[in-house]
Amino acid sequence: MSDYQPPLRDIRFVFEHIAGLRDLAQLDAYAHADPETVAGLVEEAGRFCAEAVAPTNREGDVHGTVLRDGEVILPESFQKVYSQYVEAGWGALHHPAEFGGGEFPLLVANAFKEMLNAANLAFSLGPLLTTGAVYALSHHGSDELKQTYLPKMVSGEWSGTMNLTEPQAGSDVGAVTTKAVPADDGTYRITGQKIFITFGEHQLTENIIHLVLARLPDAPPGTKGISLFLVPKFLVDDDGSLGARNDVTCVTVEHKMGIMASPTCVMAYGEQTDGAVGYLVGAPHDGMRAMFTMMNDARLGVGLEGVAIADRAYQQALTYAQDRRQGRAVGAPAGEQSPIIMHADVRRMLMTMKAQIEASRCLTYANAAAIDLAHAHPEPATREYNQKLADLYTPLSKAWGTDLGVELTSVAVQIHGGMGYIEESGVAQHYRDARIAPIYEGTNGIQAIDLVGRKLPYDNGDFVRSFIADLRTTADGLAGEELASIRTHLTDALDVLAETTEWLLSQRDDVQDVFAGATPFLRLMATVVGGAFMARSAQVALELRDDAAGEERDFLDAKLVTARFYAEQVLPQVHGLKHQVTATARDLFALSPAQLGL
Amino acid sequence: MSDYQPPLRDIRFVFEHIAGLRDLAQLDAYAHADPETVAGLVEEAGRFCAEAVAPTNREGDVHGTVLRDGEVILPESFQKVYSQYVEAGWGALHHPAEFGGGEFPLLVANAFKEMLNAANLAFSLGPLLTTGAVYALSHHGSDELKQTYLPKMVSGEWSGTMNLTEPQAGSDVGAVTTKAVPADDGTYRITGQKIFITFGEHQLTENIIHLVLARLPDAPPGTKGISLFLVPKFLVDDDGSLGARNDVTCVTVEHKMGIMASPTCVMAYGEQTDGAVGYLVGAPHDGMRAMFTMMNDARLGVGLEGVAIADRAYQQALTYAQDRRQGRAVGAPAGEQSPIIMHADVRRMLMTMKAQIEASRCLTYANAAAIDLAHAHPEPATREYNQKLADLYTPLSKAWGTDLGVELTSVAVQIHGGMGYIEESGVAQHYRDARIAPIYEGTNGIQAIDLVGRKLPYDNGDFVRSFIADLRTTADGLAGEELASIRTHLTDALDVLAETTEWLLSQRDDVQDVFAGATPFLRLMATVVGGAFMARSAQVALELRDDAAGEERDFLDAKLVTARFYAEQVLPQVHGLKHQVTATARDLFALSPAQLGL
Repeated sequence: MSDYQPPLRDIRFVFEHIAGLRDLAQLDAYAHADPETVAGLVEEAGRFCAEAVAPTNREGDVHGTVLRDGEVILPESFQKVYSQYVEAGWGALHHPAEFGGGEFPLLVANAFKEMLNAANLAFSLGPLLTTGAVYALSHHGSDELKQTYLPKMVSGEWSGTMNLTEPQAGSDVGAVTTKAVPADDGTYRITGQKIFITFGEHQLTENIIHLVLARLPDAPPGTKGISLFLVPKFLVDDDGSLGARNDVTCVTVEHKMGIMASPTCVMAYGEQTDGAVGYLVGAPHDGMRAMFTMMNDARLGVGLEGVAIADRAYQQALTYAQDRRQGRAVGAPAGEQSPIIMHADVRRMLMTMKAQIEASRCLTYANAAAIDLAHAHPEPATREYNQKLADLYTPLSKAWGTDLGVELTSVAVQIHGGMGYIEESGVAQHYRDARIAPIYEGTNGIQAIDLVGRKLPYDNGDFVRSFIADLRTTADGLAGEELASIRTHLTDALDVLAETTEWLLSQRDDVQDVFAGATPFLRLMATVVGGAFMARSAQVALELRDDAAGEERDFLDAKLVTARFYAEQVLPQVHGLKHQVTATARDLFALSPAQLGL
Repeated sequence: MSDYQPPLRDIRFVFEHIAGLRDLAQLDAYAHADPETVAGLVEEAGRFCAEAVAPTNREGDVHGTVLRDGEVILPESFQKVYSQYVEAGWGALHHPAEFGGGEFPLLVANAFKEMLNAANLAFSLGPLLTTGAVYALSHHGSDELKQTYLPKMVSGEWSGTMNLTEPQAGSDVGAVTTKAVPADDGTYRITGQKIFITFGEHQLTENIIHLVLARLPDAPPGTKGISLFLVPKFLVDDDGSLGARNDVTCVTVEHKMGIMASPTCVMAYGEQTDGAVGYLVGAPHDGMRAMFTMMNDARLGVGLEGVAIADRAYQQALTYAQDRRQGRAVGAPAGEQSPIIMHADVRRMLMTMKAQIEASRCLTYANAAAIDLAHAHPEPATREYNQKLADLYTPLSKAWGTDLGVELTSVAVQIHGGMGYIEESGVAQHYRDARIAPIYEGTNGIQAIDLVGRKLPYDNGDFVRSFIADLRTTADGLAGEELASIRTHLTDALDVLAETTEWLLSQRDDVQDVFAGATPFLRLMATVVGGAFMARSAQVALELRDDAAGEERDFLDAKLVTARFYAEQVLPQVHGLKHQVTATARDLFALSPAQLGL
């Protein structure tokens, strides 16, 4: 049996009661995504992830990637699993039917993605990048490019990459220097080096489609002079068959702390010739827009990585805590070595994981549903509202999800005691793997600045105000004794959220103070939003449980307890965070760099 | 130049104004430890750690340990550095003069230890274990054992180990099953396997002295039936020369997440013969007492590891933040790529590290000074008071220091962005290395239970009450505008500490509720104690700075700012933590193990 159990029950619950799958299925675009079809699909996806993919995770960590004569060799088990992935069409779930996709809501694709991340994070990054490339191409590419490349990318037969980063241009994409020169035939010649290119080279697919940010000769400086190019590893002939090898090579693979089996490549363009052959995607100098298309989706996807890996680590820690006997628990007979799950402190660690995993799953799924509504709802006003909602959620999903990934895998290591530090136990891998997620796709600090600098000011702050008012409605709706403490704590936390939001909005002339409070505010807001989702879950669970039996009843009872734990023991963090939000930038800049070193 | 700068200025400040080195030097036992002598000593120690040891850190990580024919091969550079360590007598600083030690206060030895940890954590574990073995032997061994073994262990020519853990006996030492059978000649024959034995085998020293917990044939069950034995790798002849190889072998070396160059051994005793030759240390069945002698010191030492590694990571992050240019800072000219230290969020990360490193350094150094006073003060009442104070401080030092080690090395990784995830940068190693410290020498959960279950109840709670009253005196003494916000926040935090302490003391009939609040309470208390030390530092800095100039003046100004940052932005955590402390065990045990898995 796999050591990973897809969280199907919780996914169904979130689909139904938090993310509104039923409403999505009312839309023309998603009429085929009725809850029953989706339930079957997700169950099958879970089986694939648990039984085929999850067992490859440790092999990937131990084997890593090997660069040999310009070719990157992945762990042996990956090829078979990847073929199964292509055959089943898992990569195509959300993509347009026109190119062979299933056109399911992103919500559904994200549930698959969560399980794939949990099963093997390193492996899942190939599909993640391909998906981003499909989005960019389908939104911005010419018809010819789309017809030539999308069908095989949607199926997964060809993979995709994003080539943004250069040594001097990481978070600051505007500093890109890779050059693109027009050729006589309407194509371009690309020259330059890109770093940190995930799945930049591998043998899983017969072609790799690189999307590359570069500058045209007449490009203005900064982000306004960036264009996007498609550079295939093998040129594609008119009949769709593969032609000559293009002048793009992997020159190094990085030695990383984790996600060992995900090749992180340094890619060289045009080193052997006058440039790699590239095709312009979208308008000249308009590459940033296409990049954001890839990136917004990828940011939510990376947030999911945190949730997913925390869940896998949680499952492993829970099993360990039941098996491992050590010390005598309170009330246990003398001489007994109790399972460590009987110790209060181990329970605290498990509940800390469970509560925050469930809360962040709600957030990331609601985020996906908002993107779906923004895309497919017939009413323009609803589309606009949900676009803003998705924009607000995305930095929360990315930064909170990935910070939790790091914190909670650390808790899982701790539950394992000494065994947690030994690689054979596997839990150390989750801890190492999780650490990348707060960094890539925009560091979490950048997410926080996006939140306070771009998202809070929507409609002069009225959008976030009405969002908070909606959460208050949730809190006010919590009736009865069993929900009383959730209501109290959520109401208190919403007061803090409202207060700190207004403080930030009122500081807009002093942007440094706003930026100084960005990271603690993001944590604060995400914690409260997560708390509101948990409160809603508890309310639903309370309504449903009298009609439920067996495991479903146990699940609903657990939801209530978990939501209460979250309200009483996680939400109060906001009372500390608010001081950080409003402390201003004064002390951050009071010391010179030299003084910081004394 | 080394990439590690010993924090000499801060160490001197803490010696003088926090840990009371001048008072220690008034005691007969430490009359030779006058501040000037100590300053010179620590400076030289710092030079050794920075210039000789620090450069070996990455080699150790890459090379790791290799087990070949029962011998453990360490990185090549270690032998030379270890010889220098022995020659200079660094290991002997605190040990009794009778056996060749310098008999300096533990406070002084700990400053050396901090720097050695920072320079190379894996390397430093050999000396750490030897030190623990010296303590156990010098307190509990017979004169004959002491004369035979201590001189060479004090000098470091022979190293020592602690053999506690067995597969079924990790945190629960009472479950040990290794056997000791009396032989006719007054020695014992030891048989059994021990796991997680740090520096259990290596070639740095010509002999290794294992201290082994085992059971005599007539031993009662549990911790009351544990005895301590000395088992040398090579038997020692009457003239002190090395004799036959004893029947103790390293059968495996663990593959760990970090501290790669510290051999973590599985040790087999008596597999070839009827048992390894061992010598009883202390009385039969009294091994736990000796073990605690080793362990209490080791717990403080492990706390220091967290502080040390966080400081090294901080230094590296600070350098990187000044060198790395990315994005335009607020107020910087258009088109500039600013050093990332000019971004508020990076400053927040640096200040978060600096403030907590300094606070936890104060705590661990004050802890050492309390141990020194408990040992060497002429007044019994002062000794008793300081013993209790050290007992209270030790779980705080261990758990808070090591939790901060993990959290702050993670912050350092984040400051490095993508480079932080690449092993070549070196910062990933600190993150991996730091993760062991919350686990070994009693997990941090065990520290928390020790704090609330054993330390708070001293004198029916009156000891901790008077301790808190002392901190209030510190807060009340903060006068003037520059200290006003520190005073306010510290006073608020002390109210929370007092309130939660009383709550825990009042729950003593319901021990499960006390244990449920243990971990958040430890964090809360340590944060407040650290805040009081920082407040005292600020007060001193304010007094001294008008007479200071140059770097010293800059340092004192920085102290004030750092203390204010701590007060305004770290201390308020307590307002969240208090809810966790007093939430009771209800929700921790409301779910069955099966429900936790739903």
